[in-house]
Amino acid sequence: MEISENNFIKGIRKFSRRSNSVVRGIGDDGAVAELGAGQYVFVQDAMTEHIHFELSFMDPYYVGKKALYSNISDVLAMGARPLFYLVTAGIPAKITSGDMERMYRGMDRAAREFGVTLLGGDTVATTNDLFVDISVIGKLAAARYFGRDKARKDDLIAVTGKLGEAALGLRALKEGGDTKGLADCIRRFLSPRPPYALWKEIVKNDITDAMMDVSDGLILDLARMMDESRKQARIHWEKVPVPRPLRQRGLEDLAFGGGEDYQLLFTFPRDKLPVIEAMMQQGRAVTIIGEVTSGRGVRVYRQGSEITGSPRGYDHFGGRM
Amino acid sequence: MEISENNFIKGIRKFSRRSNSVVRGIGDDGAVAELGAGQYVFVQDAMTEHIHFELSFMDPYYVGKKALYSNISDVLAMGARPLFYLVTAGIPAKITSGDMERMYRGMDRAAREFGVTLLGGDTVATTNDLFVDISVIGKLAAARYFGRDKARKDDLIAVTGKLGEAALGLRALKEGGDTKGLADCIRRFLSPRPPYALWKEIVKNDITDAMMDVSDGLILDLARMMDESRKQARIHWEKVPVPRPLRQRGLEDLAFGGGEDYQLLFTFPRDKLPVIEAMMQQGRAVTIIGEVTSGRGVRVYRQGSEITGSPRGYDHFGGRM
Repeated sequence: MEISENNFIKGIRKFSRRSNSVVRGIGDDGAVAELGAGQYVFVQDAMTEHIHFELSFMDPYYVGKKALYSNISDVLAMGARPLFYLVTAGIPAKITSGDMERMYRGMDRAAREFGVTLLGGDTVATTNDLFVDISVIGKLAAARYFGRDKARKDDLIAVTGKLGEAALGLRALKEGGDTKGLADCIRRFLSPRPPYALWKEIVKNDITDAMMDVSDGLILDLARMMDESRKQARIHWEKVPVPRPLRQRGLEDLAFGGGEDYQLLFTFPRDKLPVIEAMMQQGRAVTIIGEVTSGRGVRVYRQGSEITGSPRGYDHFGGRM
Repeated sequence: MEISENNFIKGIRKFSRRSNSVVRGIGDDGAVAELGAGQYVFVQDAMTEHIHFELSFMDPYYVGKKALYSNISDVLAMGARPLFYLVTAGIPAKITSGDMERMYRGMDRAAREFGVTLLGGDTVATTNDLFVDISVIGKLAAARYFGRDKARKDDLIAVTGKLGEAALGLRALKEGGDTKGLADCIRRFLSPRPPYALWKEIVKNDITDAMMDVSDGLILDLARMMDESRKQARIHWEKVPVPRPLRQRGLEDLAFGGGEDYQLLFTFPRDKLPVIEAMMQQGRAVTIIGEVTSGRGVRVYRQGSEITGSPRGYDHFGGRM
């Protein structure tokens, strides 16, 4: 099936914007785009109902928007500028045309913010649950890709924004009740816009070695980076940017183990420190949280002593696979 | 989540083959590939349990293989050679690691046949049903893309292979019982390999105007082509390649309305007729079934008289949207 297949889906064509490089857009077996020579980044990531969200607290508008944000985040984390996206929507009978319209509208909003063009995709029926699966193509903007395998000994480790906001936002949405003071956290869960302006500065200044986005929690994601780079990370508990609502509730652990913030985690050589410090002085939300050394894994230190049993990130399979 | 996320998924890396153009494969936020300048085709298509298949009669090996074939078919139908693919697997608790292994093995088999390289993707948990969603990137091989919008007045209409095999194969699998004489039909449903050699000849000889693959049934798909091209198709009932098992059962309608054969449907100008005739004389499975004229829609003629109420193709939403 293709996206132009029925009357409702024909409506999706309106979200396909003009782009000089699109030779053939929605409405055929596939889309055709003109690309210049170079390195391109390819990502594909899905969100499924009851696993990543519940419709009871997440409108389809945000399902669509967040699904595209999370993919754009992956593209940025590789050092590429997002260009195009394709979407497969898995649609159960309970979903109305209005729901679908809002889901595509949410994607379209995110797409406009990042100048990304919808190329096509698929709509399929499902028996029970809604899912959305998005692929994004980007063109490398950095001098070389920002791999997880590129952390080097003596690099410093930095992160953008605050960590744990999305996890607390999700908790508040699930539990209902008083959400006073939690607006930022809830927004981060529903609409985790990647830090594009900051990313552009990082690329322009050619700062980073390794980069990835924090999707499954700081410790788990950093462990993956260290695994790929064959290095060890040492993190200082006090330096991790824990937002006030977490501190107030004694939930600092969520900043280490909570996922879905989609902030950028990166390492950089010490000789780039003046550039990072200049960015910080201009009020950019960047925090240095530790350093890379030889060895393996992630170690967390608090007041100089190592904490054992660091909080882990989130595994949607619950260890099943 | 990304494809390297847990122990099982780490095993998928073995299906990532070496390719000179892949700069960074599975194991990061995204994959990086080096592309030359030119036009590229992008497709994304999913298969969901209970809608496109039942595990009771379709092993995960075939689910994976067919899902990739159907996407490759779309790429070929645009006039492009497939290069890379990404996969999202939606995995319910009932699916074992062995099932997943077979699903990726099925994809890998199809990928080898077409020289396509796995770049990455995602694995997500689902509450009930299995789904697989694949995106494929191809490079234009034809002088210009084979669009649905390119049929011209006085073109002839041709189709590869036979039509209705997959629909009869599906019926046999669903009903069980005696499948004598239906091996080809069942194979076409489970493993609808696109006619690559024939496609290469078509591209080499620069024959076609419009092209698409027959995924939802001849009449429905041809109607879409005519809609995009703003033309009318006239089909001669007797000329449509109906396989023997359908004739024997009086199920000729399945050749008009049955989907999932993934044969290629194309139009070509009459001055290319000698080329097509030469291909036929060499035993190539190509059949001329009608012609393009001015007007709209699809008309079917039998013994010179128009048939009304032509069989329609398959709509997975049952008219819901």
